[in-house]
Amino acid sequence: MTNAVDSTGDVLQQLARLLSDRKQADADSSYVASLHKKGLNKILEKVGEEAVETILAARDVAAGADAQALIGETADLWFHSMVMLSHLDLSHEQVLEELRKRFNISGLAEKASRAAN
Amino acid sequence: MTNAVDSTGDVLQQLARLLSDRKQADADSSYVASLHKKGLNKILEKVGEEAVETILAARDVAAGADAQALIGETADLWFHSMVMLSHLDLSHEQVLEELRKRFNISGLAEKASRAAN
Amino acid sequence: MTNAVDSTGDVLQQLARLLSDRKQADADSSYVASLHKKGLNKILEKVGEEAVETILAARDVAAGADAQALIGETADLWFHSMVMLSHLDLSHEQVLEELRKRFNISGLAEKASRAAN
Amino acid sequence: MTNAVDSTGDVLQQLARLLSDRKQADADSSYVASLHKKGLNKILEKVGEEAVETILAARDVAAGADAQALIGETADLWFHSMVMLSHLDLSHEQVLEELRKRFNISGLAEKASRAAN
Repeated sequence: MTNAVDSTGDVLQQLARLLSDRKQADADSSYVASLHKKGLNKILEKVGEEAVETILAARDVAAGADAQALIGETADLWFHSMVMLSHLDLSHEQVLEELRKRFNISGLAEKASRAAN
Repeated sequence: MTNAVDSTGDVLQQLARLLSDRKQADADSSYVASLHKKGLNKILEKVGEEAVETILAARDVAAGADAQALIGETADLWFHSMVMLSHLDLSHEQVLEELRKRFNISGLAEKASRAAN
Repeated sequence: MTNAVDSTGDVLQQLARLLSDRKQADADSSYVASLHKKGLNKILEKVGEEAVETILAARDVAAGADAQALIGETADLWFHSMVMLSHLDLSHEQVLEELRKRFNISGLAEKASRAAN
Repeated sequence: MTNAVDSTGDVLQQLARLLSDRKQADADSSYVASLHKKGLNKILEKVGEEAVETILAARDVAAGADAQALIGETADLWFHSMVMLSHLDLSHEQVLEELRKRFNISGLAEKASRAAN
């Protein structure tokens, strides 16, 4: 990566903003808008399909294949799960907040402790 | 959220660090270590299961259920896909980088434009 | 079981009868009854899980593993899809009839009725 | 098809024969041949997709939709799992035999009739 400042989180935040914009776009010109138009079942079919393709690509990697296909399938899986959240007016930040709570990941305190080291 | 400094990205980064630590932990005391010990198929079964549970929870939300169960299932899905990446010595940052490239999401420029506001 | 002529088809027929009987059984002593009691989502989770386990077992067979595990997972997948049909008061015969029509598979009775026209 | 006695089992038997024939067919004119040519991953993707579509159609039925779509998706799921078995040179009869053993479904009468020949 050639970008020093950008953090990984900003990718999801910006993707969420982009998904929100495209939710209102023309279904003929935007893949995201076309998914919303087809409805929740279509979006969930894609989540399921991408999960299966991720599983198969992971087996390919374990069998010696290049990892890039798996990275792409996992990106597809996360992308379509974000479209699902957007369709239901939910946010990826709620998912991250859930992970934070489960794993006791703290924000400020952890940063402070890092700063102290 | 009451946390001003922590960004969403830090949750995934810290989770990745935690997953890396637990990969070496005792399989009797750590769920993550037990998954690695059981092997890739077990981890992929979990990815598949959580995808299905996410799909069912999304239908529940569309039928009027509270969204929290869906948030939890999506967190499970992302978590287990991160365990999968960790098992294969891959990083969530590669997935985010793939999303960034696909959607032409820029880091520095976006931050610069925010700083200008 | 009192069936006179056993054939592969009779296995599904007898299984359907058995599933119908157990639908009313005590959920503490019957796995099938316990699935019905837990409800459709639980049954569908099992269909999804068994599909994923079938997929992984098929990859194992392709990589040289003994086929018996795949036979067992496919049996689990068909079994749980029959529980799903039973839960919704549908019959596996409707599924077989659909396959027959699609593939233009004819039987005697059906042939006779066509011959009469 | 020249089968003399139609029963539900014969549908799977005849479908298996048809799948065996088409395995060698021209991939340009036969869907089954095209699946074999694309390989196991493609066939397993279809098994996964049809499982997800079955799950969604089952939820639709529970919400009041006509059952025919679910019958069609279940037929797709069974069909593609039979293509998978065919691809790996396995038989649906092994799956039915596994179900028979698990559920203690007897073929005594059938055995008797075979002994009589």
